[in-house]
Amino acid sequence: VNIVKIGGNIVDNEDALHLFLSTIAQQSPCIIVHGGGKVATEIANKLGVESVMVEGRRITDKNTLEIATMVYGGLINKKIVAILQSFNTNAIGMTGADANCIVAKKRPVKDIDYGYVGDIELVHTEFLISCLKQNITPVMASLTHDKKGSLLNTNADTIAAQIAMAIAKTENTRLVYCFEKNGVLADANDNKSVIRTLNAQTYNELLLSGAIHKGMKPKLENAFLAKKSGVHKVFICHADSVHQPEQGTEIL
Amino acid sequence: VNIVKIGGNIVDNEDALHLFLSTIAQQSPCIIVHGGGKVATEIANKLGVESVMVEGRRITDKNTLEIATMVYGGLINKKIVAILQSFNTNAIGMTGADANCIVAKKRPVKDIDYGYVGDIELVHTEFLISCLKQNITPVMASLTHDKKGSLLNTNADTIAAQIAMAIAKTENTRLVYCFEKNGVLADANDNKSVIRTLNAQTYNELLLSGAIHKGMKPKLENAFLAKKSGVHKVFICHADSVHQPEQGTEIL
Repeated sequence: VNIVKIGGNIVDNEDALHLFLSTIAQQSPCIIVHGGGKVATEIANKLGVESVMVEGRRITDKNTLEIATMVYGGLINKKIVAILQSFNTNAIGMTGADANCIVAKKRPVKDIDYGYVGDIELVHTEFLISCLKQNITPVMASLTHDKKGSLLNTNADTIAAQIAMAIAKTENTRLVYCFEKNGVLADANDNKSVIRTLNAQTYNELLLSGAIHKGMKPKLENAFLAKKSGVHKVFICHADSVHQPEQGTEIL
Repeated sequence: VNIVKIGGNIVDNEDALHLFLSTIAQQSPCIIVHGGGKVATEIANKLGVESVMVEGRRITDKNTLEIATMVYGGLINKKIVAILQSFNTNAIGMTGADANCIVAKKRPVKDIDYGYVGDIELVHTEFLISCLKQNITPVMASLTHDKKGSLLNTNADTIAAQIAMAIAKTENTRLVYCFEKNGVLADANDNKSVIRTLNAQTYNELLLSGAIHKGMKPKLENAFLAKKSGVHKVFICHADSVHQPEQGTEIL
């Protein structure tokens, strides 16, 4: 089973999104996980809802959760599904609430109150696998739920990793993080400096030396966790290379 | 198979929606179809997008379609799913694009250009029936797609009727329209004047005499078309009576 996560920069760009989905259509059925991009912030601004970010994470108050639900779960999710259908790839848009796929717990308040942000507790894979067997590609927005009636905002990289980990228990699984760079770079300013393979030890060394960009940390920690937890193959690559992720970085 | 359509007035009212869904949870799995309510108009106003209505139908330009996708396909749809999950009713939120369930054609421009409004061409029931067999309740927003990459706005009463008609080909099917009145009323101002049973001939007579409120016409035409096309039972009733729709009007 292929699990592919696409980043906000692809989602934001109509042409890049079409190109990406036309490639993905040839690998379907697979599981797609998508984040939000700038649209949510733009719409929040227009609606007069302020976006507060702490350490790269959006603080999700009630209004922000509604906007995330509209934009991630509605606008972007359904746009992806409609485009895939035009390529004759059957797809179904979902959040973690749908078919009870991803149950999360509202993050406990410590130093920061993240608001309606969910830490994943459980991934139910039966429905996802049933879709794949029906040749249907699940398209998952970065939302989970608490089983008590509330949706929760959850990082898309984390969702992709947790789905892959849950599916890896029964299926051969490949997780591919697609974004706008060619892979994990030894020099953040040189898109040709792709690190072909990266293991946990080298990662920690490169992180300490400051070679790896800090912004890559959450994605890489998810990638290493997935690999350590039984996901068979994990890659980080450019969206244009989704059909041959070996051109990016393989996580070992 | 039970197909239940809920109107905008229930969707708009948090308490009424909870009450309704707690009742529906006891009849699940079923298929729920929901409309939009006032939220879409409110958000459109905030975003500076004007809502143009002609003969009770929203004219759907590009911006309006995006708002419908956000509000119907995202906000309302996922709210319903999350509430159902809290009642231990497994549900999946969908539009007609998801699993390619409802293919429509952009309405041809005659006197009026309705914009991105879809007239249904085909309902694929396999996925819906597969969900019901997995004990999952499909929750359908009032959006279809053209299979060319675009979503289309489609009347929720029509979607409910067309799904019921398609499923009635293989299953015993009941279609229930729930709204804020007790049924079809002989006197629009007297909620106790419920017409218990209504056949096509009486309907036409009451329509000509002006007894039946004009606003009921689209719903009733969908209801009669469904009944004529093989749906076994068709009711129009108050949302509070969804567990015993016989208290409203049965369409014969």
